[in-house]
Amino acid sequence: MEPNDLLSRGVAEVIVEAELRQRLAAGKPLRLKQGFDPTKPDMHIGHAVGLRKLRMFQDLGHQVVLIVGDWTAQIGDPSGRDEARTRLTADEVRQNAETYMEQFFRVVDRQRTEVRWQSEWFGTFTLEQALDLTGRFTLAQMLAHETFRKRYDSGTPLTILELMYPMLQAYDSVAINADVEFGGTDQKFNILAGRELMGQLGMTPQQVLLVPLIPGTDGRKMSKTFLNTVDIRMPPNEMFGRIMSMSDEVLPLYFEVLSHRPMSEVATIRQSLAEGSVNPRDLKMSLAREVVAQFHSPADGQAAEEAFIRQFVNRELPEVIPEHQLDAPVSIIEVMVAAALAASKSEARRLIDGGGVKLDGERVTSYEQTVSPGANVVIQVGRRKFIRII
Amino acid sequence: MEPNDLLSRGVAEVIVEAELRQRLAAGKPLRLKQGFDPTKPDMHIGHAVGLRKLRMFQDLGHQVVLIVGDWTAQIGDPSGRDEARTRLTADEVRQNAETYMEQFFRVVDRQRTEVRWQSEWFGTFTLEQALDLTGRFTLAQMLAHETFRKRYDSGTPLTILELMYPMLQAYDSVAINADVEFGGTDQKFNILAGRELMGQLGMTPQQVLLVPLIPGTDGRKMSKTFLNTVDIRMPPNEMFGRIMSMSDEVLPLYFEVLSHRPMSEVATIRQSLAEGSVNPRDLKMSLAREVVAQFHSPADGQAAEEAFIRQFVNRELPEVIPEHQLDAPVSIIEVMVAAALAASKSEARRLIDGGGVKLDGERVTSYEQTVSPGANVVIQVGRRKFIRII
Repeated sequence: MEPNDLLSRGVAEVIVEAELRQRLAAGKPLRLKQGFDPTKPDMHIGHAVGLRKLRMFQDLGHQVVLIVGDWTAQIGDPSGRDEARTRLTADEVRQNAETYMEQFFRVVDRQRTEVRWQSEWFGTFTLEQALDLTGRFTLAQMLAHETFRKRYDSGTPLTILELMYPMLQAYDSVAINADVEFGGTDQKFNILAGRELMGQLGMTPQQVLLVPLIPGTDGRKMSKTFLNTVDIRMPPNEMFGRIMSMSDEVLPLYFEVLSHRPMSEVATIRQSLAEGSVNPRDLKMSLAREVVAQFHSPADGQAAEEAFIRQFVNRELPEVIPEHQLDAPVSIIEVMVAAALAASKSEARRLIDGGGVKLDGERVTSYEQTVSPGANVVIQVGRRKFIRII
Repeated sequence: MEPNDLLSRGVAEVIVEAELRQRLAAGKPLRLKQGFDPTKPDMHIGHAVGLRKLRMFQDLGHQVVLIVGDWTAQIGDPSGRDEARTRLTADEVRQNAETYMEQFFRVVDRQRTEVRWQSEWFGTFTLEQALDLTGRFTLAQMLAHETFRKRYDSGTPLTILELMYPMLQAYDSVAINADVEFGGTDQKFNILAGRELMGQLGMTPQQVLLVPLIPGTDGRKMSKTFLNTVDIRMPPNEMFGRIMSMSDEVLPLYFEVLSHRPMSEVATIRQSLAEGSVNPRDLKMSLAREVVAQFHSPADGQAAEEAFIRQFVNRELPEVIPEHQLDAPVSIIEVMVAAALAASKSEARRLIDGGGVKLDGERVTSYEQTVSPGANVVIQVGRRKFIRII
């Protein structure tokens, strides 16, 4: 990564860029705040965009301060939410935090990270402190938050508790004396509240670095519902396969935010894709290997690539295979019907009898053959019908 | 006071009247909550309306619980206010509370009153408790409060702190397990919030008894600015005089809420006033004597009446004399100019020289004569110009 990329590559917005450049130029290590609510601990490569950015700052000598939002998690960030969340127990919060950090430190250097729990300051927070905080924000400011505005305007219940969320997050910045807060673009309101509060209390207001929310592999919003995420905890082969299934149009962006290629190379990739002078599959394989190497190891990246070539390229399977998610092991007969590879169980049996059903390239001979969730195997029926079991 | 008057005379609204009647009929002593914020400790007869009602309940065996709002005082009740209040120090709050209670117990029986300070529960309130409270009210509920709605709609800053006010007052009802909360009609929103909160927490929701906000002696809103209040701490003669200066049209209401006359007599008074068959001055003197007797003593009431007769009736002073407020002692010359009894100091001296200036009926002979704030003396110039020094 070239130094010039620091405030531009994989960055959506910097507030205030000139100030941040000045503070970076001053040479003093900065305290980089990254908060998370241990609610849903599964991270995907969308989250990794910010973590990679933190890592870049660490590599320049700056200090990451990771805030475990054990208090805000119990409220739930209302940003982008249509309704109030259900509250988590303290135990769920602790377990989720551990799972989150295990993933966080796959990218961010643990040695240069200070982990702080909100309970350090909120555990002894008095009502007076809470009231003081609420006296520093007006309702009009809060309703400038699009999420709050929409919720209120549409008549969906919005509790005062939810208005407390940005204030608590803001106070975290005061508690740890943050120089820069990192977050996705959906965090802009909350992070600016921290900047505002610090200024009111006579502190140097924190700078804001927002990373983009990247689309899922199919170009839609990244969401588990669409099966278009690449999760940090996915096994190497599954991660590799998920990247291979991506749409061509998101490829240049993924190279920008997830690879270490210089931006000049990313520009070349963008251009050759537009011109059709390169096979997208080759680019995807190269990206997939690099991504697996990052979250697992270079050896895992190479092995996943080799497995993919054995399984799909040499056997000339299609690059994009629809996925079918299982909750429990089922018989091949059942999954064929469920995935619409056969119209009925009796048709499924006839297809097997006729030798037209293959599991990872091997002909299926028994109705009793079972497949399990996460098996990452491909079922092929005839020449053109494929599904991958996940 | 006839028993039937309990829930009607001097009462603006009862929520829910049938329930409250049932609880009264059950015979168990009820806990009657009355809160006050020790901000401006001066009470006037407008406040006395509620205190008299509390006293009536006490006389039936019920228990008053007086909440000293030492926490809410520091926020300031936003009800009816156009802008955020300035916050008081803890010392100011304590001093104000003492002054308030000295007046409160002129009407309410101290023996049957439990005094509770909010700091008993809010002093150890945790952030978790505060957040729990904020989770029980929605923004839409809060903006149903006319004061909040207006402030927000007009773009006047409304802090989240101010939204906390009704929630804290509501929690007081939980802390003391109130059966009925008393307050002026401007307290309806806050008191209903207490009712709502108790219900949410599985307690029997408190009943609400609202007393009317009575107009000042001139029929306008009661306010120090208009010099139309009758303050509980006024000396007997001043209190008597202020009641004598009242407009005829508020007389029946004052008899209803401030005297012990049966409602049938109040009806007669209303009718005879309408017919012109009674001299309003006689009614006012009778009311003034009764009110002074309540806040001072029957002897004080009688003495004030006699002084009034000596001073005004026998000397045929007008019943209504404009008042002039002083901040510090000044010479008669200065006050004459300030109150526009003379156009200049030299004119004032000429008027004194001519023997046309009287102080409480006595001719003024020296330019050096001084008058002091609160002296309650009448300066007369010529035949028609009068002011009373307060």
